[in-house]
Amino acid sequence: MRANPIRQIWAEGKWVLNAWCAIPSPFAAEVMANLGWDSVTVDMQHGVNDYQSAVGMFQAISTTRAAPMARVPWNDPAIVMKMLDAGAYGLICPLVNSAEEAERFAKACRYPPRGYRSSGPIRALIYGGADYFDHADDTIVTFAMIETTDALANLDGILAVEEIDAVYIGPSDLSLSLGCKPGLDRTEPVVVDAIETILAAAKRHGKRAGIQCNDTGYARRMIESGFDLVTVMSDQRLLAAAGNKVVADMREGGA
Amino acid sequence: MRANPIRQIWAEGKWVLNAWCAIPSPFAAEVMANLGWDSVTVDMQHGVNDYQSAVGMFQAISTTRAAPMARVPWNDPAIVMKMLDAGAYGLICPLVNSAEEAERFAKACRYPPRGYRSSGPIRALIYGGADYFDHADDTIVTFAMIETTDALANLDGILAVEEIDAVYIGPSDLSLSLGCKPGLDRTEPVVVDAIETILAAAKRHGKRAGIQCNDTGYARRMIESGFDLVTVMSDQRLLAAAGNKVVADMREGGA
Amino acid sequence: MRANPIRQIWAEGKWVLNAWCAIPSPFAAEVMANLGWDSVTVDMQHGVNDYQSAVGMFQAISTTRAAPMARVPWNDPAIVMKMLDAGAYGLICPLVNSAEEAERFAKACRYPPRGYRSSGPIRALIYGGADYFDHADDTIVTFAMIETTDALANLDGILAVEEIDAVYIGPSDLSLSLGCKPGLDRTEPVVVDAIETILAAAKRHGKRAGIQCNDTGYARRMIESGFDLVTVMSDQRLLAAAGNKVVADMREGGA
Amino acid sequence: MRANPIRQIWAEGKWVLNAWCAIPSPFAAEVMANLGWDSVTVDMQHGVNDYQSAVGMFQAISTTRAAPMARVPWNDPAIVMKMLDAGAYGLICPLVNSAEEAERFAKACRYPPRGYRSSGPIRALIYGGADYFDHADDTIVTFAMIETTDALANLDGILAVEEIDAVYIGPSDLSLSLGCKPGLDRTEPVVVDAIETILAAAKRHGKRAGIQCNDTGYARRMIESGFDLVTVMSDQRLLAAAGNKVVADMREGGA
Amino acid sequence: MRANPIRQIWAEGKWVLNAWCAIPSPFAAEVMANLGWDSVTVDMQHGVNDYQSAVGMFQAISTTRAAPMARVPWNDPAIVMKMLDAGAYGLICPLVNSAEEAERFAKACRYPPRGYRSSGPIRALIYGGADYFDHADDTIVTFAMIETTDALANLDGILAVEEIDAVYIGPSDLSLSLGCKPGLDRTEPVVVDAIETILAAAKRHGKRAGIQCNDTGYARRMIESGFDLVTVMSDQRLLAAAGNKVVADMREGGA
Amino acid sequence: MRANPIRQIWAEGKWVLNAWCAIPSPFAAEVMANLGWDSVTVDMQHGVNDYQSAVGMFQAISTTRAAPMARVPWNDPAIVMKMLDAGAYGLICPLVNSAEEAERFAKACRYPPRGYRSSGPIRALIYGGADYFDHADDTIVTFAMIETTDALANLDGILAVEEIDAVYIGPSDLSLSLGCKPGLDRTEPVVVDAIETILAAAKRHGKRAGIQCNDTGYARRMIESGFDLVTVMSDQRLLAAAGNKVVADMREGGA
Repeated sequence: MRANPIRQIWAEGKWVLNAWCAIPSPFAAEVMANLGWDSVTVDMQHGVNDYQSAVGMFQAISTTRAAPMARVPWNDPAIVMKMLDAGAYGLICPLVNSAEEAERFAKACRYPPRGYRSSGPIRALIYGGADYFDHADDTIVTFAMIETTDALANLDGILAVEEIDAVYIGPSDLSLSLGCKPGLDRTEPVVVDAIETILAAAKRHGKRAGIQCNDTGYARRMIESGFDLVTVMSDQRLLAAAGNKVVADMREGGA
Repeated sequence: MRANPIRQIWAEGKWVLNAWCAIPSPFAAEVMANLGWDSVTVDMQHGVNDYQSAVGMFQAISTTRAAPMARVPWNDPAIVMKMLDAGAYGLICPLVNSAEEAERFAKACRYPPRGYRSSGPIRALIYGGADYFDHADDTIVTFAMIETTDALANLDGILAVEEIDAVYIGPSDLSLSLGCKPGLDRTEPVVVDAIETILAAAKRHGKRAGIQCNDTGYARRMIESGFDLVTVMSDQRLLAAAGNKVVADMREGGA
Repeated sequence: MRANPIRQIWAEGKWVLNAWCAIPSPFAAEVMANLGWDSVTVDMQHGVNDYQSAVGMFQAISTTRAAPMARVPWNDPAIVMKMLDAGAYGLICPLVNSAEEAERFAKACRYPPRGYRSSGPIRALIYGGADYFDHADDTIVTFAMIETTDALANLDGILAVEEIDAVYIGPSDLSLSLGCKPGLDRTEPVVVDAIETILAAAKRHGKRAGIQCNDTGYARRMIESGFDLVTVMSDQRLLAAAGNKVVADMREGGA
Repeated sequence: MRANPIRQIWAEGKWVLNAWCAIPSPFAAEVMANLGWDSVTVDMQHGVNDYQSAVGMFQAISTTRAAPMARVPWNDPAIVMKMLDAGAYGLICPLVNSAEEAERFAKACRYPPRGYRSSGPIRALIYGGADYFDHADDTIVTFAMIETTDALANLDGILAVEEIDAVYIGPSDLSLSLGCKPGLDRTEPVVVDAIETILAAAKRHGKRAGIQCNDTGYARRMIESGFDLVTVMSDQRLLAAAGNKVVADMREGGA
Repeated sequence: MRANPIRQIWAEGKWVLNAWCAIPSPFAAEVMANLGWDSVTVDMQHGVNDYQSAVGMFQAISTTRAAPMARVPWNDPAIVMKMLDAGAYGLICPLVNSAEEAERFAKACRYPPRGYRSSGPIRALIYGGADYFDHADDTIVTFAMIETTDALANLDGILAVEEIDAVYIGPSDLSLSLGCKPGLDRTEPVVVDAIETILAAAKRHGKRAGIQCNDTGYARRMIESGFDLVTVMSDQRLLAAAGNKVVADMREGGA
Repeated sequence: MRANPIRQIWAEGKWVLNAWCAIPSPFAAEVMANLGWDSVTVDMQHGVNDYQSAVGMFQAISTTRAAPMARVPWNDPAIVMKMLDAGAYGLICPLVNSAEEAERFAKACRYPPRGYRSSGPIRALIYGGADYFDHADDTIVTFAMIETTDALANLDGILAVEEIDAVYIGPSDLSLSLGCKPGLDRTEPVVVDAIETILAAAKRHGKRAGIQCNDTGYARRMIESGFDLVTVMSDQRLLAAAGNKVVADMREGGA
């Protein structure tokens, strides 16, 4: 089976630089996937994606060495399994608030006897290789999003779920849940504390940790503090920010 | 009929800041169209667009005040007329190399007796308004691309075609045709001379002039030299450049 | 944040005329949205729509002043939140049969602390404006469909859910549930009674009420009886009825 | 090979009632195709259709007995042949202004030795049957649109082209070309005269004649005057007219 | 209402030959549907299909006499009802592991009072006919997949659910659940025993039984042993196997 | 620039095994591209493909080492250039009947000064690499289809066009043009003679030759006779043939 770059990088003691795709376009995904990220995540929750756009984007990502990932829209085994069958090498599940929810998600990612994933890896077999079934359970990475006070309360229970490989912090929802403003790169002490708590807990349980960032400076600090994966910006944010800058430059300079 | 912002801006003695969309996604187009450009052009020649993606993008652009434009893939009345019926307020036609070709393009954009456009402005009627037929010929802007030595040789003939409103310079093809490298923001004297020649000819004929640029500094110089419309970058270039920068920042800073 | 026409109309003591789109086509939606309805609903339950067609249709609707709404296919927070992120200003949820189900739906439409909506309003931010987060909870309208005997039995409980803004009557399911034939514009006393009961309960709780109608006469009577929103026909019904009439006229007149 | 209802109806001395589809949706086409029209035409010129939407619409039309037709966007053998391969039983070609143009169109619809159609009827073979090649040339109906003063001047030459089976009048372009307003159901004497001239010429050459109409009364008069096929309204016009009426009824009655 | 070929064949004491479509393409489905299968199933679980591709494929299947079926991605009434409204004459539900789950699925397929299906059969009314509501409950066939040890343990309970018409065996998941390798056409005694147990139980309860097969020899044996419906291969497997053979033949013969 | 497998294989004195894709589905193309063909051609002429489906299919093909090719629908520089910009490494142009037509096609595939291709290789730059412009003209392979008596008459003129790299025989059209039946694997002496004439002429001019075949035996004979590339079957033919066989096996064995 084709190796998972994410696991390879982690095995080398390094961190993973993850791209985020919200634009439902295989071409945009191909542009992104060719920029040198280690993994590329199709966001099916807040991104403008559904199953069909995600499959096209996975094909585009598969023209590169980057690992294809998806954030599923919900903790629903139907879409979890469909994305795995489509060839996902990593899945991020939003709003995992309890050990039971963590089991529901993570076991949907593993074949019996480790889980309850249904057999039929149609595109995964093409992407992963003929021995996909033998190695899938150890290759695919499962990320549980920790982004509510409920999840914080149940942190150890969630991390004790064996098939959960990593946590992923959604700072915007987490901040909101803690009574702060939504948004990335939070600096409110209560949010910063929560992030540190989650990271420490993950490490304590021998699990990996990832986080969504906006600014490269903030992302580098997260890596320095021990995060194993950072997402920086998204295709839509990159496009809007870069376009905004051009328009501002032109309006200033040329009026 | 809804007024054309391009003509309004020109009437005020100002220049038009044009966006360029190569990604075939109505959502990406909507992101772009909301950034403050005066017009947004769907590139159907080198962009990854066809008629159906362009219509979706026109709908997205129509949620804003920016003028919807298209660069058609070829000087072909079939697609020229389809884009006008879809609501284009400006069309850029590639490779207009002679007065005859200029007539073929520009008259396809005008109803009889001024041209030979066929009647049936299905979406244009919704976008433009019930009196579309009465004003379309005076509202829509026709740009002939001048990008070869043949076009340079026939410049006055092209500019003498009444229904041609403006020229648009494709510096990459023009440079190639003049024996230089392809690319934007050319500085080779022969290309610079050609650009100045085209601009001067357009002004002499009372026509407008636009040009494709990459860098805001170059674009501002073009405006200062008299251009009436500048395109700066494209959605795909903005995305790739911004993404590249993030990856480079992270690789440098975090390794 | 862009105001919600539905709330504005209600604040003026008037009723809302709602369009219904079952055809999965942004162009058909644009045609509909330009006819003067106050709001346009993309039907994702019985209509031939999914998330991707709905987004394209929202873009088309957003070229007009009509409020973009959706009937979600099911009381599922995944699609509820995706439609809100796509810019819905109103959501109609089918088959809300208990207070618990009403909470599940309505709280998915509100950010913490009022609900559990996840943060990431990707297109909603573009459509609604930069201050979307501050006003979304008070702008978006939540409609719970009352269409079964269970719902009738739990009517007060459902209406007591604070984040439910309105009820919406699906006469076809309601009729079926009451042992009558499916279909709109019901006149069976038991169905008429149920409709009156629902309307009265809504008013008693200070909530709004909407209903699906087929005939304009019936719809006007509903308004006279106190309904705040009426849907009349759907794009598919309008097309079929109008086409049927042409065919009948021609067969009669020309045979 | 499956018979062509159009030819069967004509053989019985009757007229064909043709539907017109401008909305790019297989579902909308299926709704239309089930209303009892004899043939259903996908409009690829002024309709919002391209090849891919047309194929899906042909599949939807093929669930009924109505003959699948297309108006191609231009007199271009590439799309003419693609639509035939997709299963078109009739093609309407816009703007046929000379005998030479008529030959270009009609011979693209016939296999050698009668024409120059390329062999590869991929979907047509499924729709038409295994003996498609043997009967296609005699089954498919070719309509040349007569809609300009040039075409009027060359009417006999066009009609003398053997593989042209019929003319089709586009009253809007014809009216425009004759110096009148665009639109259907023209009553200006100069346009009425032109319509009568075209009809008489077709009959004189033993060819069929069709015309685009808006109103059933006008359409019936055209049949009475000898037309063999009438198109009445289009899906988009039917939808807009029916929706407009509902909105008007509601605004009047309920305000 | 249009009759269901599946029920007609069974009434004649014969077995149903079912096709399986994993490729999300209406054209591929049309090719398949024209080969002589009795029914054609769009696989939305492991196949690369979602709602929108399935609707297009149903339209393509509806050009033939084969019964349109779908395997839904999950036991979720939202998609179950959407596929019925789209015209499904049979539904296969994966992973039905208890009587409660069987009820959840099967009652979603029946209108009140027999079930809780919501009224709005938009395309089903066109495909099935105007009297669809009166006959749908007795026409549509519901298949519960038996593919886990849990389902085996609850077999009688599942089969006692009145609105379950048939079981469908997924040998790959069943084999995995029983501790064997995944894949079709299993010969391990424990799997063979389980298959026989399921078949016998179905017959005992007066229900029908279907099974997914790969090889025609295996499929024929299943029919001989009493199965009422066999699926053989899938479009993707047929394509890959046939293409593989061509490549192998060419590499051997021509190197 | 990424090397072209077709040129590499030819440089080694070997022949190319080409796949043919008529089904408009990136997933079907990915299945095909993984079977071991040297190149995969998206058929945009008789296949059910347009530009947008072809781009998705190119992305799917690009996940493998097979060279992405397209048969364009017509000798039209617009689509020729769009397919090159999309990353085609080989183009097959139908119906090249004269030296002039050969020039029109082949020069559209080369940048100035060798041709008139317009600069803007949007996806080709991603697929081919940053030095695409420097090597594209020598990497891309141009195939002129010889399939009419006109082409036979002009064979030497066509082959003398420098930028034509190869001929490609369409036996069905060729056979038809020579007064025989359409179809592949022709054995009529007049067609066999024509094929041999074309092959000999190609070799005489130092050009490559390819041919469309149905049967592997016939294809091997073509290779033995000197052809440099053979296409065997197509995805649609493979699917239909394999499906037909399963149905026939089942009907025979199980009735």
